[in-house]
Amino acid sequence: MALKDIYATSLSLLTDLYQLTMAYGYWKKGMAEQEAVFHLYFRKNPFQGGYTIAAGLEHAVQFLQELHFTDEDLAYIAGLRGGQGQPLFEQAFVEYLREMRFSCSVDAIPEGTAVFPGEPLVRVRGPLLQAQLVETPLLTIVNFETLIATKAARIADAAKGDTVIEFGMRRAQGIDGALSASRAAYIGGAAATSNLLAGQLYDIPVKGTHAHSWVQAFDTEEEAFLAYGQAFPHDSVFLVDTYDTLEGVKNAIKVAKQLQPSGFTFGGIRLDSGDLTYLSKEARKLLDAAGFTEANIVASNDLDEHIITSLKQEGAKINVWGVGTKMVTAYDQPALGGVYKLAAIRQLDGAWEYKVKLSEQRAKTSTPGMLQVRRFRDGVFIADMIYNELESLPEHTQVVDPLDSTRRKSIPPGTAFEDLLLPVFKDGTLIYDLPDLLTIKARTKAQLDSLHESIRRYLNPHSYPAGLEGSLHQYKLDLILRLRGE
Amino acid sequence: MALKDIYATSLSLLTDLYQLTMAYGYWKKGMAEQEAVFHLYFRKNPFQGGYTIAAGLEHAVQFLQELHFTDEDLAYIAGLRGGQGQPLFEQAFVEYLREMRFSCSVDAIPEGTAVFPGEPLVRVRGPLLQAQLVETPLLTIVNFETLIATKAARIADAAKGDTVIEFGMRRAQGIDGALSASRAAYIGGAAATSNLLAGQLYDIPVKGTHAHSWVQAFDTEEEAFLAYGQAFPHDSVFLVDTYDTLEGVKNAIKVAKQLQPSGFTFGGIRLDSGDLTYLSKEARKLLDAAGFTEANIVASNDLDEHIITSLKQEGAKINVWGVGTKMVTAYDQPALGGVYKLAAIRQLDGAWEYKVKLSEQRAKTSTPGMLQVRRFRDGVFIADMIYNELESLPEHTQVVDPLDSTRRKSIPPGTAFEDLLLPVFKDGTLIYDLPDLLTIKARTKAQLDSLHESIRRYLNPHSYPAGLEGSLHQYKLDLILRLRGE
Repeated sequence: MALKDIYATSLSLLTDLYQLTMAYGYWKKGMAEQEAVFHLYFRKNPFQGGYTIAAGLEHAVQFLQELHFTDEDLAYIAGLRGGQGQPLFEQAFVEYLREMRFSCSVDAIPEGTAVFPGEPLVRVRGPLLQAQLVETPLLTIVNFETLIATKAARIADAAKGDTVIEFGMRRAQGIDGALSASRAAYIGGAAATSNLLAGQLYDIPVKGTHAHSWVQAFDTEEEAFLAYGQAFPHDSVFLVDTYDTLEGVKNAIKVAKQLQPSGFTFGGIRLDSGDLTYLSKEARKLLDAAGFTEANIVASNDLDEHIITSLKQEGAKINVWGVGTKMVTAYDQPALGGVYKLAAIRQLDGAWEYKVKLSEQRAKTSTPGMLQVRRFRDGVFIADMIYNELESLPEHTQVVDPLDSTRRKSIPPGTAFEDLLLPVFKDGTLIYDLPDLLTIKARTKAQLDSLHESIRRYLNPHSYPAGLEGSLHQYKLDLILRLRGE
Repeated sequence: MALKDIYATSLSLLTDLYQLTMAYGYWKKGMAEQEAVFHLYFRKNPFQGGYTIAAGLEHAVQFLQELHFTDEDLAYIAGLRGGQGQPLFEQAFVEYLREMRFSCSVDAIPEGTAVFPGEPLVRVRGPLLQAQLVETPLLTIVNFETLIATKAARIADAAKGDTVIEFGMRRAQGIDGALSASRAAYIGGAAATSNLLAGQLYDIPVKGTHAHSWVQAFDTEEEAFLAYGQAFPHDSVFLVDTYDTLEGVKNAIKVAKQLQPSGFTFGGIRLDSGDLTYLSKEARKLLDAAGFTEANIVASNDLDEHIITSLKQEGAKINVWGVGTKMVTAYDQPALGGVYKLAAIRQLDGAWEYKVKLSEQRAKTSTPGMLQVRRFRDGVFIADMIYNELESLPEHTQVVDPLDSTRRKSIPPGTAFEDLLLPVFKDGTLIYDLPDLLTIKARTKAQLDSLHESIRRYLNPHSYPAGLEGSLHQYKLDLILRLRGE
């Protein structure tokens, strides 16, 4: 099977086996069509940070739109065997899957929105079987892209207005790990990518310099720079550390001077090893002395928000940051840990029954209801309130910290607000107009601008007030105590 | 664009822009067809471990077989603009790409082989332009899959014969991050995956239990277990921690007893939170007391080789390990850091010129030549020797540690050996018979069995002797000193 055929395969099997076994169980019990509500949310901001940037909705929408089982998928499912060699599923169930078309209603927070622990990024309401089935792919897509958008936002923040270029493909976790990371990094704050496929598919600006091999392929570094400069008279950034960095800078300057009369624009140099602070300062002096004050100094080599900050504090003369591995893999925390939990189920009499999961760990307890997030603002964002859309709100608006219920914030009447989850699918039909990537990128920036800087800082940030609406908090508490038989 | 269409796109643009700008530069200088040799290798075993398991070759082969630019790709390339709005590439170059077909020779170490720092996992020999172009995708594929196979091998080793099931899709880095991780984890030592698509595409056994939502969807836990047990009389593992773990175990036992008369086989229980040692011991007592001595205790919840070892040391009664996030993202080191370096280039007179890259960091220095890896064995593996196939070997075989040249190992004449890199492509034609996955999996096991246990242990392992052949070491040293002008 050729690589591209793998990806042309229907992706409906891109889920965990247990989604299918539960689907079968629901179907057998006549519960397949019972209406249910699930929420996708995470429990902690990644990177010990103060915020998270939502991403991945576009890919999630595309996945849901395509959701159906092909004949090949169904043949695979029908062929699955249990522990004693018996077919795992009845044929009538396989036929049910054949006819199944996505008919859930989905609400979600737009990409590029700042979000916080416990807030549903995606809410799926519809037939229990379907809403359960999409758990795994929704998590895969939203977890990863949200993680990378957040990491990129932090790195762009550390760069304080300097250009950040993402070039992590070679270290990414697979082909799609690279491709969707490039898109998420762009949403979060990267200005460009090295990834041509991402450039083609998402219209992201592509940027690059050259590799060490380019220099090695020539007899001398000078010849190599000259050849590259001739090929790209307005787009040459020379990588100077193949043999000796500062000699490399001198060779770059020599070549730039030689080409200047023919209209060459010197893009700058790239440093990829060694003491970047020292080398960039020395390089800057050499470039400035030669009159190339506009030439960029690009740096790469395992950069992240912490190293960029440290280099800036040391006065490094770097103005373009090439970030790879640590951005596209979210190196210091390579998974978001988002979950997808059942929160309500509709009984035969039409009444909603709220559901909660307890677990042995308090932090793993879920919130019941059909949840919406209301964001209050007064210039900047002041608080987020998770509330149950199925119940009426009390007059006094209060937000309770779910991890410490003694921390409560009252919202004065008349405070401006918006509800974050927007309708995306209505009974299986897409009703959301997917924004273009530049709009999403601009949203990220506007959102970050609306967060107090103490929340935005990436070491020991202040905790943004995002909690449960007072009566929901009380209901959840009562439900937990009842389930624990207290 | 629908999700599946993205992956049906030609993947030839899945590379860095700079590969294309260098290609253009080589083409302009008349160097495009000059014969070159590149090696893909890593500099350090991941996870502070003693070995690495090679993986990803099959996907790399598939990628190379498909390598060509479609009309759509070429239109994108032709449309790229430079810093001053000019086309980045001449149209004649675009036409050159249109005609380009992969014609390199590729040698590689088979998947499932234990490999060590500095050893070329893949060697590409052919036209400079092509051999350069494939750098990024080869790195993406081989870096990630090798990383995950290694992580899985460590985790399986920690499980000491217990079954390890990979179920990381929901936390994987994208769709392909999940899919290729499932395959690599199976190569490394996982016995099964939860990923249905991986099951379908690669014929990996699929396994699963059920989610908390299954329990929540019913009025009581007991009803939920009963319904699941009826649906899967021989394949039920009950998740017991939705409300209270030990109550859950009791409910599971109650249901199993109730179903026993109808021929039910009790698969066991799964623990997903809390103190796994305590809970598993208590669960084992309850299960045994009820006569279910064969029922499995499956555990999950952020497991890795260290936690599994610790649980085993504490005497946890767990015999099946469900490992997700930490395996499929290689959480503690989510990128391998493999590189792809030019090592030789053929001059017009037919002579090979060897190439080395110095860098500011000693560890980043590359090795010149057309490299092969010779593995010596005497029962177990005793040493690996990286040598230059283009030069004749001296009579006295000596392996020099590249990081400490005072450490040398002499190999007695007559020692059994094999060369690890096998021919895969000859002038663009696939000549390698890709082994099936079970063969690769068996190879991993046989390789690990041939490593001394001090190298296999995952904390502070002994360093396996993998170094440069004596005369190659000397040549490299001379070349570095010459380039440094000493």
